[in-house]
Amino acid sequence: MPERKGQHTVLFSSRPTILGAAAVVGKKEGEGPLGPQFDRVFEDTTLGAKTWEQAESALQREAATLAIQKAGFVPSQIHFLFAGDLLNQCIASTFGLRELGIPLFGQFGACSTMAQTMAMAAVFVDSGAADVCCAVTSSHFCAAERQFRFPLEYGSQRTPTSQWTATAAGAAVVGIGGKGVRLRAACGGRVVDMGVTDVNNMGAAMAPAAADTLARFLTDTRTVPAEYDLILTGDLSAAGAELFCELTQQRGLRVQDRYNDCGLMLYDRRTQDVHAGGSGCGCSAAVVCSHILREIGAGRLHRVLFIGTGALMSPTSCQQGESIPGIAHLVLLSDD
Amino acid sequence: MPERKGQHTVLFSSRPTILGAAAVVGKKEGEGPLGPQFDRVFEDTTLGAKTWEQAESALQREAATLAIQKAGFVPSQIHFLFAGDLLNQCIASTFGLRELGIPLFGQFGACSTMAQTMAMAAVFVDSGAADVCCAVTSSHFCAAERQFRFPLEYGSQRTPTSQWTATAAGAAVVGIGGKGVRLRAACGGRVVDMGVTDVNNMGAAMAPAAADTLARFLTDTRTVPAEYDLILTGDLSAAGAELFCELTQQRGLRVQDRYNDCGLMLYDRRTQDVHAGGSGCGCSAAVVCSHILREIGAGRLHRVLFIGTGALMSPTSCQQGESIPGIAHLVLLSDD
Repeated sequence: MPERKGQHTVLFSSRPTILGAAAVVGKKEGEGPLGPQFDRVFEDTTLGAKTWEQAESALQREAATLAIQKAGFVPSQIHFLFAGDLLNQCIASTFGLRELGIPLFGQFGACSTMAQTMAMAAVFVDSGAADVCCAVTSSHFCAAERQFRFPLEYGSQRTPTSQWTATAAGAAVVGIGGKGVRLRAACGGRVVDMGVTDVNNMGAAMAPAAADTLARFLTDTRTVPAEYDLILTGDLSAAGAELFCELTQQRGLRVQDRYNDCGLMLYDRRTQDVHAGGSGCGCSAAVVCSHILREIGAGRLHRVLFIGTGALMSPTSCQQGESIPGIAHLVLLSDD
Repeated sequence: MPERKGQHTVLFSSRPTILGAAAVVGKKEGEGPLGPQFDRVFEDTTLGAKTWEQAESALQREAATLAIQKAGFVPSQIHFLFAGDLLNQCIASTFGLRELGIPLFGQFGACSTMAQTMAMAAVFVDSGAADVCCAVTSSHFCAAERQFRFPLEYGSQRTPTSQWTATAAGAAVVGIGGKGVRLRAACGGRVVDMGVTDVNNMGAAMAPAAADTLARFLTDTRTVPAEYDLILTGDLSAAGAELFCELTQQRGLRVQDRYNDCGLMLYDRRTQDVHAGGSGCGCSAAVVCSHILREIGAGRLHRVLFIGTGALMSPTSCQQGESIPGIAHLVLLSDD
């Protein structure tokens, strides 16, 4: 049963279990350092679909279907889906998951969506509202580029601080009991806006939200960074990660010796031409639903704070001169 | 504590209370039959903002702030916000609620969002994950028209089955105990796609989802329509409401004698030139958060099934030849 701790943290007393998880990615992500750990790598990033948006839907369907299979269920046994993505009106999720026939509560947290959907699934399962839920999200480089920036055909230049939207999806099936990584707590993110307006530096826009959520979680739970093996943001990438470390230091928190960012883990920045690193809902989803869960399962990590980070802008809000607010939702993943 | 009943229904044993609610609307909505029941009517639908999107943000901020005040709280006492809207990347919610400083879990259910956010708030409060949550949503005619259809300046013709997107926002503060309408149950909606492709007949696209959710809820709870005073969809409007009645009748359910639709209640269709009726997240939000809660509070209604309905399309998905899937989330509102 969930219990609120402090102001914005929820502890899950029945320790919901990730009974199955899947990460599916595109060619470039498959060529990165985590390549061998993904369930499927699609050399053809259209996945046979006619449009990039439909390809992203297919990614999400693949991830959810695989995760449900790996957990030993059929779709009709899943009580609720929590899913979202970056596309206008979340069409990757709604069209991608349409045929599963499972009730769907659409979630929008921009690139923080994986952490948010995991938190929702954990609340539902821990409270008895559901026996089993599935958390899913995705992004697709080609769909995101044309929606947020320029059509690919323009071949436009990218700035050094820009991030590369991952072509990837991740899914986690959450239930009670059984074997698997446990969801022990969640902390809800506030909208934090420091006035950043550079759409090519989302990391800087999101870092203050990540620092805010981490600080509130540590206060709520009266814990310190040293009690966790890994503090993992997703995805601040190079510029944002550096800023995150500075901002946490200003608050008297030492994270550097146990910190990483999904956007820095997905690609080899020296050779893969992704500039500051990866981004997109699918980036942290794929990193967490493969490598991170595996590391915890193998006993190499014990307690991981996964802080999903999102930039809450749209092309319209930017064109209208608005700054870029950030948000960060946190979940505590544990081996016990 | 939530208890799942049947397959997709959740009963709330602590009977979460709507401790305060607010509905704010534009000029046209203020001139409709429910006009006197709204908390605020903005004669100037820009709300003093420079853009329609910012005006919609202001609507949502007004509704949330008023609801929190009416419930006797200040924003810092609200644990979590559940909010969403129709705009790309849900910017009405994220910018509108930014300054409140409350953790925000963004929700996307298209026009079903009010029912979805109420269900989320009820699960969190009933389970102990939060003491008090706020559910909010909005829509704005001018922002929706240019995003989904044409810029207003085109003055384009509308078809008879088209709906009028409400300029409105509604908010409900949900807690435990106290006086107010109770949230007794929720049923999650599945994505239902009957292949409708006419973007000017969203009612037809959503009606099958509403019938599906109602039927599943009644099966899960082993109840019949006669046990409820009102079965309220939001928003199917004229064409969709008729289809909903037919589809429920085909399933052996008699709803006609206790049925209404928020899209038919918000405007006077004879005089207000809204064609099939109202739509948009704000339509059902404003009708429920004013008239419906008031009717229950006054003892004129006792048990109301509010079925929020959404069309899960985007202009992109329609341009790519996709059909329009519908979704419907249900909440049971009660006077005890």
